[in-house]
Order: sequence, then structure tokens, then C-alpha cells
Amino acid sequence: MNMIELILSRHSYRGKYLPVSVPRNDLREIVEAGLAAPSGCNKQTTSLIAVDDPSVLEQLYTAIGRPYEGTAPAMICVVTQKIMAYADRTFYIQDYAAAIENLLLAIVAKGYQSCWHEGDITGEDSEKGSQMAKILGLPADHMVVCYLPVGIAADEVNPRAKKPFAERAWLNGYQQEWK
Amino acid sequence: MNMIELILSRHSYRGKYLPVSVPRNDLREIVEAGLAAPSGCNKQTTSLIAVDDPSVLEQLYTAIGRPYEGTAPAMICVVTQKIMAYADRTFYIQDYAAAIENLLLAIVAKGYQSCWHEGDITGEDSEKGSQMAKILGLPADHMVVCYLPVGIAADEVNPRAKKPFAERAWLNGYQQEWK
Repeated sequence: MNMIELILSRHSYRGKYLPVSVPRNDLREIVEAGLAAPSGCNKQTTSLIAVDDPSVLEQLYTAIGRPYEGTAPAMICVVTQKIMAYADRTFYIQDYAAAIENLLLAIVAKGYQSCWHEGDITGEDSEKGSQMAKILGLPADHMVVCYLPVGIAADEVNPRAKKPFAERAWLNGYQQEWK
Repeated sequence: MNMIELILSRHSYRGKYLPVSVPRNDLREIVEAGLAAPSGCNKQTTSLIAVDDPSVLEQLYTAIGRPYEGTAPAMICVVTQKIMAYADRTFYIQDYAAAIENLLLAIVAKGYQSCWHEGDITGEDSEKGSQMAKILGLPADHMVVCYLPVGIAADEVNPRAKKPFAERAWLNGYQQEWK
């Protein structure tokens, strides 16, 4: 499968996972792909914590408010620091989002599945993210903004419906059709 | 080259480009990869405009404040709408950043180079982004937040220095070394 086919074959997976552990080497390759994402002014605001210790995973899922059972045998926690790129400008959201996309692609490339979980541990639910940060021993200036399960899917992976190409992509100007 | 090698081989390219046009089919594949990125609550807040018309490109580079000469023969303009995912929560920044990372990877996969240009047309320089939006004929609720040149590099592609792995990636807890 080439790169673009792989990009098109990635979908958010919300099913159960097989109880098969993820080798550390695979986790490391995935994490290296995440860190290879660009960052605004090369500030590298994103850090990553891979978790495969069952007791830590269980604590994290308790903080998240989901049963640990049936979840993936590994997780990547996406950590950010709101570092300024220049003046009052920071690109930390863009930085971690690009890193997450790399992680998701690398996860699928290695034969695993995942899903971008952000809204359920941030914003109104940021208390959950803070609990996770505490479990992981993070200093106060580091935030957990997302977690990605990593494991082999037990269920089918189904794409979500997307708007047609012509509603989101144009050539040389707004709503100008591709030829 | 496999997916992870390709992710690791992508670097921000700021050099000149060869005056060799990019086939429409390649642009289309790249744009499809961009649109395949996930989006918060599947809101698909990102749209893309590929530009390969020299007169439009020249107008855009004038708005950006850079000479058109020596630039890439194509550009992808990343357009966003600040649509709420739920309540007062929007993930439009995460959405377009994930789309941009897919675009950059697809660009490199097809043998081209690019660079994420965002800060120079947003924030303090958002007047430039507004000018670009006007040239492209975008409605008022659509913003141009980034442009990506697409072309064959004329110069060498060099990686930027990054922090060592151990400073950004840990196992099962903050600053816990990989084993």
C-alpha cells in the first residue's frame, strides 16, 4: 500500500481491541513518527508518553471515565506546552494536531487502529485531562490534550460518511470545479 | 519507502522550485489525501483550493508580499470555517492542521516539496490572508489560514535540528526512559 492509499484507509476506530500486546519497538516507531511532524517556528511544543503498563492504563481509563476492559493494550498520551513561537503567537494546537495525524497514520501503517480522543478530556472535561497529567507525573506547565489507543481491532473498521469532493475542493477559486 | 520512512523524510522546504508544472492528477491526489484527515465530530471544517493558474498565483504572491518568480508552479490554499462541534467548542484548528499534515505527506509521496506557511498570512499579518480570500472569491465566513507551495525542489532539502528523542518521549510516565 502506498502512502496516499494508506492516508485514505485511515478511519477513526471506536470498537473493541484484541488482548494482544503491542511490541515496544512498534510503539517507538509510532512515537518517532509523531515527533517528526513539523511545528511552528520549530518550537517542538508536543511531547508523547506511550503507556503499556496495565496498572497505569487502568488508572488512566478510570480518570477518563471508561471501563479499562476491552480497550487497547497500549495508549499514547499527547502532551503539550503552550510555548510562544514569537510575540503573543503560539502554534501549539497546530503542532500537536499535526503530530497526532502522523501518529494515527503510523499506527495504521503498523497494522493497528486508533481514534483521536480530545474533546472528552479537554474543555468542559479538562478535569479528566488534569487527572491523567497527575497520574503521568507531569509538571504544571504540561497538559494532556489527547489520548490515542493503540491495538489490533477486534471489530470491523468502518469509514464515516464524508461530504463529496466537489463541496470541499476547488481549482483556482472558490467553488470552481476540478477539470 | 514505507509510510514511516516517508513521515521521517518530510522536511519544511524553503528553497527555490524548478519551473516544471504539477499534473492536475497529482494535485487531485494530494487534495484527496488532505480531505481524508479526521475532523472533530466529523464537522469537515477544512476546504482546499488548488491553484495552478499563473495569473492567480501571481496575484496571491503579491498579496503575500513575496516575489512570484522562483516559487512553485502550484499552491494549495487551506481554507477553514469556524464551525462549532458542540456547544461553544470548535476543533477547526486541529482539523486544518491534521489536513495540512496529510497534504505535506502526500506532496512528498508524489516527489514534490512544500512548507507550511501560516504565521505570515494570519495573526498580525491576517490582512494578507484576507487579500488571498478576496482573490479566491471566498465568502466572508471562509478564512485562508495557510498556503502550501507544491513543486519540484531546485535546491537540497535539509532537515532542521530537533531535540533528542529522550527529551520529548517517555514510557509510562513523565521523563521515564524508553527501555
